[in-house]
Amino acid sequence: MEMKIDFPVDPKIYKEAIERVGILDLETATIRQICTLAAELEKVTGQKMSHLEIGNPGLPAEQIGVEAEIAALKAGVANQYPPIQGIPELKEAASAFIKAFLDINIPGKCIIPTVGSMQGGFSLQLLLSQRLPGKDTMLFLNPGFPAHRSQAKVLGIKDEAFDIYNYRGKALEGKLEEILSKGNVTAMLYSNPNNPAWTNLTEEELEIIGRLATKYDVIVLEDIAYFGMDFRHDISHPGEAPFGATVARYTDNYILMLSGSKIFSYAGQRIALVCMSDSVYSRKYDFFKSFYEMASFGDSYIFGVLYCMSSGTSHSAQHGLAAMLKAAAEGKLNFIEHCKEYERRAAIAKDIFLRNNFNIVYDSDNGEPIADGFFFTIGYPGLSGSELQSELLRYGVSSIALRTTGSDQEGIRVTISVMKDDDDFKRLENYLKRFDADHGKN
Amino acid sequence: MEMKIDFPVDPKIYKEAIERVGILDLETATIRQICTLAAELEKVTGQKMSHLEIGNPGLPAEQIGVEAEIAALKAGVANQYPPIQGIPELKEAASAFIKAFLDINIPGKCIIPTVGSMQGGFSLQLLLSQRLPGKDTMLFLNPGFPAHRSQAKVLGIKDEAFDIYNYRGKALEGKLEEILSKGNVTAMLYSNPNNPAWTNLTEEELEIIGRLATKYDVIVLEDIAYFGMDFRHDISHPGEAPFGATVARYTDNYILMLSGSKIFSYAGQRIALVCMSDSVYSRKYDFFKSFYEMASFGDSYIFGVLYCMSSGTSHSAQHGLAAMLKAAAEGKLNFIEHCKEYERRAAIAKDIFLRNNFNIVYDSDNGEPIADGFFFTIGYPGLSGSELQSELLRYGVSSIALRTTGSDQEGIRVTISVMKDDDDFKRLENYLKRFDADHGKN
Repeated sequence: MEMKIDFPVDPKIYKEAIERVGILDLETATIRQICTLAAELEKVTGQKMSHLEIGNPGLPAEQIGVEAEIAALKAGVANQYPPIQGIPELKEAASAFIKAFLDINIPGKCIIPTVGSMQGGFSLQLLLSQRLPGKDTMLFLNPGFPAHRSQAKVLGIKDEAFDIYNYRGKALEGKLEEILSKGNVTAMLYSNPNNPAWTNLTEEELEIIGRLATKYDVIVLEDIAYFGMDFRHDISHPGEAPFGATVARYTDNYILMLSGSKIFSYAGQRIALVCMSDSVYSRKYDFFKSFYEMASFGDSYIFGVLYCMSSGTSHSAQHGLAAMLKAAAEGKLNFIEHCKEYERRAAIAKDIFLRNNFNIVYDSDNGEPIADGFFFTIGYPGLSGSELQSELLRYGVSSIALRTTGSDQEGIRVTISVMKDDDDFKRLENYLKRFDADHGKN
Repeated sequence: MEMKIDFPVDPKIYKEAIERVGILDLETATIRQICTLAAELEKVTGQKMSHLEIGNPGLPAEQIGVEAEIAALKAGVANQYPPIQGIPELKEAASAFIKAFLDINIPGKCIIPTVGSMQGGFSLQLLLSQRLPGKDTMLFLNPGFPAHRSQAKVLGIKDEAFDIYNYRGKALEGKLEEILSKGNVTAMLYSNPNNPAWTNLTEEELEIIGRLATKYDVIVLEDIAYFGMDFRHDISHPGEAPFGATVARYTDNYILMLSGSKIFSYAGQRIALVCMSDSVYSRKYDFFKSFYEMASFGDSYIFGVLYCMSSGTSHSAQHGLAAMLKAAAEGKLNFIEHCKEYERRAAIAKDIFLRNNFNIVYDSDNGEPIADGFFFTIGYPGLSGSELQSELLRYGVSSIALRTTGSDQEGIRVTISVMKDDDDFKRLENYLKRFDADHGKN
């Protein structure tokens, strides 16, 4: 008779599962590896786990995009290389979208499609590390998306980083001055809303970042993958205040990375945009002139870097994204309203965690409680982040350790993106209750 | 009254056009820059040029792929991240395709989609340059696709190269021995059929390459973008000899890059496959274990490199390619017959060049005349390759100089891919006749 294995999984069986999927160190494992381990534990137990690890969009793709892609395929785009700089319709629609929701002017010329913001971050870091002698270091404002630092590592680019937990508000200025005044930082990268903490930089903080970026000739890479999802502020009316927060209001040294993956639930088609200020695009560099035989940053980026990385981005996906951006800018597609589903899910999931004696790690924006949205961060008394991640996996809950996001705090990152229905939340409640019963003090 | 400007364009006006499009050195300009210049000259003259520069598929995309992509989009794949290692259907269909047309066994596990073979070449060169201390150099068998060397340059990888023109047949062995015996070469890269020369390596040459790759622990990157288009040998019957030529018959140290862009006229959707032997996939490296925390080449490639470059390849395009490969392997899609259109066009275009006193530069495979197909190479008595390219542009014919392909011969690369109808060929005949009248000796 076969033994039934239940959560919590016996430590020995758990250790064997980790070895079977080839994970050498759980704490530094990538999200994809954690997913593989979760699948293995589901096989072992025959039971579903609570998947709080991967940020797969939990909503259907925006239909306007799907229909536009299908129309483009029927019209015969599949045999033609897409322009590497992007099809004109996409560049213009993106420019209008940015004007409508951020109130920032970026000409279509300066907006370039990439194979997801993953390609955006990878390709930009490569070029930014080359632009000026001595400016060879990336600065990451942590916590952050672990892949961004992996990109620097794979490319052999030096990096610095600090956890902004203790440097909110005015305190950010001193810390940035200390680092940037050394002169070796070429660019800084952060995501806003923040992945994993779901914090949002305040206007005061964005002003500090922008001013110091100008002062020290640092280019700001602002990853706005979760644009519009700080639901405390309703920016869903195109052309009307309030507009989305961005460093672009405080410096010309900016590049925005705007992905279709989350705002339009379009992750499958791997499409995003790099949106740089005209001043970043047009600036000429001696090194680029000799190396790429093109002097400007923008031309070197498109024809030097993106050309040899993938020769551009899927032709039909460009049409799909163009249609969604256009509809949104014209007020015909309220993507922010659609994404509010994540706010609802986060509120329920947070409540379950709190009821079972967990706590929110990053809980405020310099005083104001954080919004409910795609991610939040969770701690448990007496456990380090990696102990918590590992123990939770054994109890049926899959997540990633905050340490992998460059955080100095002890905890895990939780995403509620695939938590759909009552069953999902009940399962989570059961696992957490059992966990708390076994680990709690009383 | 406005002056009408005709081909040949006045040298001064020509020079100004080159300056306007920002080309610093015509001889080393990329294909995309030449396209931009050609568009500028068409604007100046108000006349169409003969476009022999860019290898855009000149056939409609295979409908089976388009329909499968549309079906996948309708089924709702757009919101889900594709598996980075590829969807199972694609991996299995590719394995069957390779068995059917190459008679080589590659398990699905070892076949991974990339954003075009452009991403394949870029990502593989990065990983190959890291695998063993001291093995830090790429060897390119020239002439070749210029972007491959640009990729090495952008990644800061050392390279070596030689023109195989003088090293065909047995002569190849001595030359390879001389280079590989130094021990610093990690991998060699060539395309077969050759871009730009449309030469094909003979079985004797493939055997030499394979044997020496094994002997010196060099991995062979074989770019088979134009697979099946050596029309001298009809390999269009799946599962039946003759099969396609490949180095995979002579070494386990191989990685094939199989693109959908040309064989299925699918360039717009940016999809290709990296197909590595099980032995390449499974081999473990100390460096990968410490750097990627995954020991095997294949896992490091998928979860270490491809993950952080683009997080995989378009979900719907994977379904499209899977359907085309499956249909081809089952004998329901004769893509080779479809591509024979290029043979017809090449025969006509070659004839026009030869009638106007041009000559074929790479004209044989160690004695046997080359096939007609996507590319050929052209010279003209008394002119260097860059003079020929530049003068032809002025006369209305756009091409790239052989020098940019790493060739030591004087001439240009011609592709007939977008030469569709009688008008296209008549225009070419007119331009070349005028050119020969002005440059000929008699």
